[in-house]
Amino acid sequence: MQRATVCLPGKPGYPVVFGLAAGRAIRTIISAVVAALAGWKTHHFVDHLAIGSIMQNPPARFSAWPGDAEVAVALTFDVDGEAPWLSEGPEYSRRLTLLSQGRFGPARGLGRILGLLAELDVTATFYVPGHTADQHPGAVEAILAGGHEVGHHGYLHRGTDGLDAAGQRAELEEGLTALGKLGVRPDGYRSPGWELTPETLDLLGELGFRYDASLMADDRPYWVTSGTEPLLELPGHWSLCDWPYFGWTSYHGGLLADPAAVERIWLAEFESARQDRRAVTYTMHPEAIGRGYLVRMLDGVITAMAARGRPWFATHAQIADLAGAAT
Amino acid sequence: MQRATVCLPGKPGYPVVFGLAAGRAIRTIISAVVAALAGWKTHHFVDHLAIGSIMQNPPARFSAWPGDAEVAVALTFDVDGEAPWLSEGPEYSRRLTLLSQGRFGPARGLGRILGLLAELDVTATFYVPGHTADQHPGAVEAILAGGHEVGHHGYLHRGTDGLDAAGQRAELEEGLTALGKLGVRPDGYRSPGWELTPETLDLLGELGFRYDASLMADDRPYWVTSGTEPLLELPGHWSLCDWPYFGWTSYHGGLLADPAAVERIWLAEFESARQDRRAVTYTMHPEAIGRGYLVRMLDGVITAMAARGRPWFATHAQIADLAGAAT
Amino acid sequence: MQRATVCLPGKPGYPVVFGLAAGRAIRTIISAVVAALAGWKTHHFVDHLAIGSIMQNPPARFSAWPGDAEVAVALTFDVDGEAPWLSEGPEYSRRLTLLSQGRFGPARGLGRILGLLAELDVTATFYVPGHTADQHPGAVEAILAGGHEVGHHGYLHRGTDGLDAAGQRAELEEGLTALGKLGVRPDGYRSPGWELTPETLDLLGELGFRYDASLMADDRPYWVTSGTEPLLELPGHWSLCDWPYFGWTSYHGGLLADPAAVERIWLAEFESARQDRRAVTYTMHPEAIGRGYLVRMLDGVITAMAARGRPWFATHAQIADLAGAAT
Amino acid sequence: MQRATVCLPGKPGYPVVFGLAAGRAIRTIISAVVAALAGWKTHHFVDHLAIGSIMQNPPARFSAWPGDAEVAVALTFDVDGEAPWLSEGPEYSRRLTLLSQGRFGPARGLGRILGLLAELDVTATFYVPGHTADQHPGAVEAILAGGHEVGHHGYLHRGTDGLDAAGQRAELEEGLTALGKLGVRPDGYRSPGWELTPETLDLLGELGFRYDASLMADDRPYWVTSGTEPLLELPGHWSLCDWPYFGWTSYHGGLLADPAAVERIWLAEFESARQDRRAVTYTMHPEAIGRGYLVRMLDGVITAMAARGRPWFATHAQIADLAGAAT
Repeated sequence: MQRATVCLPGKPGYPVVFGLAAGRAIRTIISAVVAALAGWKTHHFVDHLAIGSIMQNPPARFSAWPGDAEVAVALTFDVDGEAPWLSEGPEYSRRLTLLSQGRFGPARGLGRILGLLAELDVTATFYVPGHTADQHPGAVEAILAGGHEVGHHGYLHRGTDGLDAAGQRAELEEGLTALGKLGVRPDGYRSPGWELTPETLDLLGELGFRYDASLMADDRPYWVTSGTEPLLELPGHWSLCDWPYFGWTSYHGGLLADPAAVERIWLAEFESARQDRRAVTYTMHPEAIGRGYLVRMLDGVITAMAARGRPWFATHAQIADLAGAAT
Repeated sequence: MQRATVCLPGKPGYPVVFGLAAGRAIRTIISAVVAALAGWKTHHFVDHLAIGSIMQNPPARFSAWPGDAEVAVALTFDVDGEAPWLSEGPEYSRRLTLLSQGRFGPARGLGRILGLLAELDVTATFYVPGHTADQHPGAVEAILAGGHEVGHHGYLHRGTDGLDAAGQRAELEEGLTALGKLGVRPDGYRSPGWELTPETLDLLGELGFRYDASLMADDRPYWVTSGTEPLLELPGHWSLCDWPYFGWTSYHGGLLADPAAVERIWLAEFESARQDRRAVTYTMHPEAIGRGYLVRMLDGVITAMAARGRPWFATHAQIADLAGAAT
Repeated sequence: MQRATVCLPGKPGYPVVFGLAAGRAIRTIISAVVAALAGWKTHHFVDHLAIGSIMQNPPARFSAWPGDAEVAVALTFDVDGEAPWLSEGPEYSRRLTLLSQGRFGPARGLGRILGLLAELDVTATFYVPGHTADQHPGAVEAILAGGHEVGHHGYLHRGTDGLDAAGQRAELEEGLTALGKLGVRPDGYRSPGWELTPETLDLLGELGFRYDASLMADDRPYWVTSGTEPLLELPGHWSLCDWPYFGWTSYHGGLLADPAAVERIWLAEFESARQDRRAVTYTMHPEAIGRGYLVRMLDGVITAMAARGRPWFATHAQIADLAGAAT
Repeated sequence: MQRATVCLPGKPGYPVVFGLAAGRAIRTIISAVVAALAGWKTHHFVDHLAIGSIMQNPPARFSAWPGDAEVAVALTFDVDGEAPWLSEGPEYSRRLTLLSQGRFGPARGLGRILGLLAELDVTATFYVPGHTADQHPGAVEAILAGGHEVGHHGYLHRGTDGLDAAGQRAELEEGLTALGKLGVRPDGYRSPGWELTPETLDLLGELGFRYDASLMADDRPYWVTSGTEPLLELPGHWSLCDWPYFGWTSYHGGLLADPAAVERIWLAEFESARQDRRAVTYTMHPEAIGRGYLVRMLDGVITAMAARGRPWFATHAQIADLAGAAT
């Protein structure tokens, strides 16, 4: 509406000479027609096919979202607990405050999140390090009891780029063992700290994972190669993660942002995804988003999404089930 | 109210298919009934008992807050003065600007804070390093004259994780001596820089402390173990501390946040605590919150709390007095 | 208007004694007259000629902008891709997540940006490292197909101050070769990471560049010396770049700012440039500004500029074409 | 007004039981009476005399501000130019972009600032490193021509705590020589990077400085000791400086804050100073605040101050002239 006003030719101050928006409405219609011809997936902005051709990571094709949804929203939570700090070095095992800050995730924040999801009848995906599963088995049980998905998130949250292939294999297998003790055989993996090496991709295929959620080359699901097999990538991004906004520790500092601004950012991305009719993944941590003041923000975000469009709140497994074969 | 509108079935744009909030009102009522059966402590969100079982740090039980208050609010201030910088190394003893930045706390900011608390008739807890007590005895006298509590905050604000058991004992005993000279025998302790080791916990019990305010595994008061005895933990968090928002020094940088955003964050946490009917601790530093522009923010925060609900502004000692025995 | 109200003498609370704005209106008129006598370029604030005399970098003279535009706006995009991370060290070649974060630029963000520019009928300048051109030739082809300018941005995005003259020459020549394979002979250069050494300036002249976009000594185009020849400088600034606001990586941290605040900043600078009737350069990165939520912000910024004034959206080459000779 | 509403007894939601603000109005009146008895300097908050007694840095006494002003506002600008970067190490002399970022201060930003101050008829204090005076003599001449004060800011902006007494003496004397060539004999000093050592204080007295603007132990002018003589301190603070909000460089990062938030912060401090009837110092850098979008903010800040109260915009020298003798 605001735009329509701006686009009215002849409006005082309208830069007729430089013609910024003169033909915008017409061009937008043409773009939409072109996009419509390419299938159900319409884009707000022109999709330059020339760009697509340079991508060695082809986007996955989805015929439609269930129930005529406009957008697939994956709410995902990394239940890190004490693991990330313990993996930083032996001196961290004495730092009880920092460890307790992580422990807040499974011990307190998770309960709030599960309660909210139950209230809103939304299912989500929880990536759980093996160490968290061993230390807090009740946390995993509660996640499963809520009907949510559990994914793999390493064992001690060790960064993949600090490990060789053997070290990565051990970390993956220990994680599988820990989750297995609780009856979980994960379909998906997210790398600790969001770093991935070529060895990781190969191991994911070998160990039978169906999808990964660690890369960022696109904001649509896309195909990568694991060994010789295709592996589905469900990408995230730091701007859609709670940690850069709300993660603050005494040894690393950080930011404590205005939740109102983050709510606007996440909803703006939701609008973008809705117009693209794509899937979008939000990544959170119970030790951050599970704080009282932030669960209220999350509540507001989910509620606003439901009010603004027709979102499908889906687990990563549910989205992966719908992905067409890699071309 | 905004929510009620959102939840109305049939509202245009309401995602009937994906049913986000369809049964929300009903589920919320059920949650409240279940919570009510569990005692006076109602939770806004479902409390998953499965999560509770994994906590090795059981929350303390409170039968009720005085005067039918909905929430217990502990305003706490760490009167660090010059100590934190002096503990960083001998070269800091020449850095008069940085030292003066800390000195502003007891010399100027504290007066403003005590004046505000007196105006608002609110009592608070002040954690004072022994070094501050030795250098600024009048600061401690003024705190006591205002009817506030004085707690232990180390001697030279040395981080516990950089000290062995003997070093920690010395720091604790020197702090007790310094406060003792001013007639203070503290009941509570907060670790400098919010880090605590197993040795600290043992020493706290041995030295007769009743509670600690250094850990973060929950946002409700909970029990930890000191030696073989239970010790009450009154947890805080960086998001409820002024330093990550307003602490800026030339050697460490930092953030200088928008006070309006922090006010919203702290009030949102207040609302969360109010709905949980729990205690909540805010942690501040006179050298930060005592600046003219921030005392105005603190005034606004306290006034808004009083206007929005029925808070009990309590010292940590008053809250500890009401904590039921550890189970 | 708000100002006019403030300036009314006799308004209650008006500081007559200290006379802040008493003569402001009169002084502003005098300033405007003086500025008008100096040519078409009027300044909102008095231009102290004494300051001008100390500048060894004289501002370029422009007789007028095309079509009676009030301001020349250069939208520029550095299509860094994977290059910056690869230049940081060999260990980065395994860090697939970080590399994919950069890859998002040419692979996904660029398409959105080109689509938006096409819709708004705006041309822009894209600075492309040779490595990006080699890895993503389709990206360069799409930029050219959109009628935009392609500039030089090094080969592997190596910082100039880490290279000697020979290393810089190699980086420049490799970049020229890579762009040349796609038919591009760039007129302009922007240094990777915005750092430039005296050797770079000499090499730019020797290699036939007409202008540089790496320095910040003024916010008007100005002349620098390359060898013995003048070289046009089209200055930028970090506050007008998306990276300090929206660049966040796991190894370097960063900020994820409120887009609404950045929009206000960029439009305030636009107003300043409009009043100065100067050129202004905005610098962006497809991996940042190309995220869904930020393309929406960019859309809002450009649309607001068109609605508020008479901007000329120009490439750097177009602006350089109009620059008068160095004096 | 908002407060009055909050304080009305019987208002729904008013916490009668916990009595937050019940007696606030009465207590505020008593405070004001007590403060009034202590002289013209009234404080919004109770001034705890016990705190005053621990200050070894007694606040300076001012009988009144000229013209019945409520508050003395010192706008101060550190014209650093290239000096801070050159002092960091020899490798910085090749980094032309970073140097040009500093050069923007005297070459471009200063002119804008002087123009604004002339329009608003406000005088200010400019602290100028000797190196800036040598490199940009026209900048100093323009400052003097505007009727402003020039203070000492070191020679090459070297941090005092990295220098011994001899090094500090050389830096001070070189600065005096450089300013002296332009006819300036400064009365005041601000340390580069806001750090000061005991040797600096002694040297300031020996070299005949009347006041310093480098410390932060109070937010009122106060007395320190230089050798055996009192030296007036005109304190600043990072929260009232533009650099932590708007200083961003490629080698050190930083923050680029929302100017609207900074405007609110600076005006809130102004209100605090106005209620205290004290002097307040704002510290800025032409390379930061002199950017187009920020000069507009500064304009808004000064204009709002004039509209809200009766400020006396004064140089540091003018404030120092009024300070009563140290007790």
